[in-house]
Amino acid sequence: MTMTVATMMCMCLLLLQLSITFFVFMCCVGNGNARITSAFVRSEFPSVDIPLDNKVFAVPKGYNAPQQVHITQGDYDGKAVIISWVTTDEPGPSKVQYGTSEKTYYYAAEGTTTNYTFYKYQSGYIHHCLVDGLEFDTKYYYKIGSGNSSREFWFQTPPEIDPDAPYIFGIIGDLGQTYNSLSTLEHYMHSEGQTVLFVGDLSYADRYQYNDVGVRWDTWGRFVEQSAAYQPWIWSAGNHEIEYMPYMGEVLPFKSYLYRFPTPYAASKSSSPLWYAIRRASAHIIVLSSYSPFVTYTPQWLWLAEEFKRVNREKTPWLIVLMHVPIYNSNEAHFMEGESIRAAFESWFILNKVDIVFAGHVHAYERSYRISNIHYSVSSGDPYPVPDESAPVYITVGDGGNQEGLAGRFRDPQPDYSAFREASYGHSTLEIKNRTHAFYRWNRNSDGKQVPTDSFVLHNQYCMIKYEIFSVEKYALTYIYIKDTKYHLYIIQDFERGIKSYKIFDLLTNLITCIRYYVLVNPSAVYVYICMYIYICVYIYIVN
Amino acid sequence: MTMTVATMMCMCLLLLQLSITFFVFMCCVGNGNARITSAFVRSEFPSVDIPLDNKVFAVPKGYNAPQQVHITQGDYDGKAVIISWVTTDEPGPSKVQYGTSEKTYYYAAEGTTTNYTFYKYQSGYIHHCLVDGLEFDTKYYYKIGSGNSSREFWFQTPPEIDPDAPYIFGIIGDLGQTYNSLSTLEHYMHSEGQTVLFVGDLSYADRYQYNDVGVRWDTWGRFVEQSAAYQPWIWSAGNHEIEYMPYMGEVLPFKSYLYRFPTPYAASKSSSPLWYAIRRASAHIIVLSSYSPFVTYTPQWLWLAEEFKRVNREKTPWLIVLMHVPIYNSNEAHFMEGESIRAAFESWFILNKVDIVFAGHVHAYERSYRISNIHYSVSSGDPYPVPDESAPVYITVGDGGNQEGLAGRFRDPQPDYSAFREASYGHSTLEIKNRTHAFYRWNRNSDGKQVPTDSFVLHNQYCMIKYEIFSVEKYALTYIYIKDTKYHLYIIQDFERGIKSYKIFDLLTNLITCIRYYVLVNPSAVYVYICMYIYICVYIYIVN
Repeated sequence: MTMTVATMMCMCLLLLQLSITFFVFMCCVGNGNARITSAFVRSEFPSVDIPLDNKVFAVPKGYNAPQQVHITQGDYDGKAVIISWVTTDEPGPSKVQYGTSEKTYYYAAEGTTTNYTFYKYQSGYIHHCLVDGLEFDTKYYYKIGSGNSSREFWFQTPPEIDPDAPYIFGIIGDLGQTYNSLSTLEHYMHSEGQTVLFVGDLSYADRYQYNDVGVRWDTWGRFVEQSAAYQPWIWSAGNHEIEYMPYMGEVLPFKSYLYRFPTPYAASKSSSPLWYAIRRASAHIIVLSSYSPFVTYTPQWLWLAEEFKRVNREKTPWLIVLMHVPIYNSNEAHFMEGESIRAAFESWFILNKVDIVFAGHVHAYERSYRISNIHYSVSSGDPYPVPDESAPVYITVGDGGNQEGLAGRFRDPQPDYSAFREASYGHSTLEIKNRTHAFYRWNRNSDGKQVPTDSFVLHNQYCMIKYEIFSVEKYALTYIYIKDTKYHLYIIQDFERGIKSYKIFDLLTNLITCIRYYVLVNPSAVYVYICMYIYICVYIYIVN
Repeated sequence: MTMTVATMMCMCLLLLQLSITFFVFMCCVGNGNARITSAFVRSEFPSVDIPLDNKVFAVPKGYNAPQQVHITQGDYDGKAVIISWVTTDEPGPSKVQYGTSEKTYYYAAEGTTTNYTFYKYQSGYIHHCLVDGLEFDTKYYYKIGSGNSSREFWFQTPPEIDPDAPYIFGIIGDLGQTYNSLSTLEHYMHSEGQTVLFVGDLSYADRYQYNDVGVRWDTWGRFVEQSAAYQPWIWSAGNHEIEYMPYMGEVLPFKSYLYRFPTPYAASKSSSPLWYAIRRASAHIIVLSSYSPFVTYTPQWLWLAEEFKRVNREKTPWLIVLMHVPIYNSNEAHFMEGESIRAAFESWFILNKVDIVFAGHVHAYERSYRISNIHYSVSSGDPYPVPDESAPVYITVGDGGNQEGLAGRFRDPQPDYSAFREASYGHSTLEIKNRTHAFYRWNRNSDGKQVPTDSFVLHNQYCMIKYEIFSVEKYALTYIYIKDTKYHLYIIQDFERGIKSYKIFDLLTNLITCIRYYVLVNPSAVYVYICMYIYICVYIYIVN
């Protein structure tokens, strides 16, 4: 009976809304195109590698001093780190001493030592030490090496896995070791990023020949130590890690990379360090390998099917995927190279409501709309991507600054799937606020200062049901029903300047006010979707 | 001056032809659909594996007698074979004695012995012996094992690499070890096939668990010996070779397969036994791995780019590709699974004018038209495959007869790219006649007899320039200019009954007669392409 009254009330509301809708529709001019190709002209450094004798590559002083120190997450949930470093004079100890106070190391962990040859290059002694059983949300100090040559660093463990745990990830790709790379790294270190999600192509050592390949892996290790020794870098592999170099007898893919950059793959039941998953704070992060087999029946495909089942959005509402090759890219460089992996995985991303997919590979920045191409079949169906609210946002951050330079030729016209694109160096940050909202920002390296350019509020795909009520060139009104609550959120968004205003209501009637308000602000630009979506809103209101 | 006269003459001819064309065009009804979904109802054996105690799996008598004997090509050009076998009681010799007369073994070669474990299964002693330096086109007898347990076999080397060397290849896929598998093998052995091109999924041992996996590899080895010990089987790997079985700690892809089935990969500068190429008689055969990395920058991709450069169509005019997953498939089973590899390689197949691509995977038979989808881009272009004379014919022969049974559900309607499809068990043969022609035939296993069903004359993509002048439901008139000769070939083809008639002319004027003849035969069914293609024919005539 109550239901019937509610239904009737809502039907009246609906009629009223439809009247308004009709009025709005009759007096408006729709234009849904908000795609942006940034015309920013950057002042960039030359795309050449920093010389070997530059201080960013300096070898630490002392006999057999640990160098190329970097850490990564060591388990599934963030209570462990793997600490890696290289010694060159002799193997030396693989022990890590650590504790929660500076200079006071109550604990110790024992690691392993390995080395490899690449052509005639003989690597240093590469140490990997798993430090586990740590407390969440705690600063740890650690010491490696021995005697006068020992070195000390610190890191902060993430908060315990919790759906509302805030966390800031940095995203860097295709870094290399040029002056632009340095600029990117310095900009990132001035951000508040707590962990780097690295989307492949680390050192670009494979641009060198013979022994110089190994030499440039060593310089890169020393270069990134300033950040990577203090916070985890979550590694994924790119094409520059493959190092298939038959001319010098080196054909084992990822050889240098695998010796140097361990990952906690076994913790997520993966059979290869190249694909794995971790959970950190409120995020579940899946790392894929663009250059390993990924089609149906391959180990990576079978593993990913299982890993998606292990994702618990109640605990980690944010589902992030890292891979090297972007699925949606509108740059002439590497255009359509992601088609193979798109064919394999895109439908799973939609089905599992992945929030965001970060890739590199293309030396430019690009962000997609939420779109999918899963209805394409080779003989029928939609041939081109269509808007899809269940799809992730695809972001390409291949603009770390390597010696190959920028990919400045975007396809013209800008495809419908592309929201923002610019060929500048930079990095991104993803600031998770709680289970429903995160703030994403791309930071262009510019004039020595950190300049945010593309940014938006990311709504969680699992904890929110979102309806874009209308979207025009500069504005959008978005309706969000916050799952498992009685709240509704209306956002009036200014695409050019970020969020303009948002309000939370618990009564549907306010929607009418909200629409009226918007119409007054910008009476000429309401989009035709308005009618359909109000129906959906009312339906949800009744059901809940 | 002569050129001018010739040109004028041809212009007159052209005008005459255009008049005829116009007449033909005005009075005809076009219908280009000749797609066939065979409704043949087969009497099949149950899809169960043959019991272990069946005689087809019998262990040869005698202590440590060689079993599971099989051979494959051992070099690039066919002057070597790799002979493989297993002994179970002790390693025993890895020596092969061989010669050109029965029981007279003047020569000997020394091989290697290896073995492996799979879960708790311990393989027998696996021997591989390269026998090289052979003469072309010669029958060799060989003997392996020692004492009373030794066994004798023979094989025939292929003719020397020559553009007109005739050769008959058999094509088998997804064989398994059921009664249907046995039927397929027996049918093949009654054909005149000289070498098997095997398109993956050998034993289906991975359908078993624990130690039975290894046991069923051994039975399969004994099962195929009746053919594989006497003629080379050219191996490619399918998904059933991956054997990613974490539940028993086995995650190394292709472990059993790689231990048991060597390939001459180094001879084609490949870095993996999973992808490689051989040349045999007048054919260049490229073996790809569907389940190894194949996207841009991967070793397989880089290798294939180089291998296509090594193809010399003047010496081996026939360019054949083997892979497990079909690129064009209209069965519900595995539909679109080939999209990833299509995105990576299809444009190369067109560019290099591959003649034919054989695949398995789908447990049915299917043949495509010459079509391509290379103009599809994620934001523009043709979304669906279009007729493309430079494209290979794609053939799926995944119907060897394994325990998973037939894939009987074809997509409806039959897509335009699909020419013939039928869900029956069988195998194919490709009978190369000379540099320009080959006869292809699919042989359905039926009532214990070899029954050809789908067959056609394959025109070489390099040695012929072919123009289909019109193509209707049941007939086609094809114009072929035979490269490096003055001859033109006109084929009037009856799709239902194979070739009806073909004629070779060296004067263009005969084309008119030919068209007239056709129009008289079937005046209501000439296709609209006629006009355009006559222009092209005339142009070629003038140029040459």
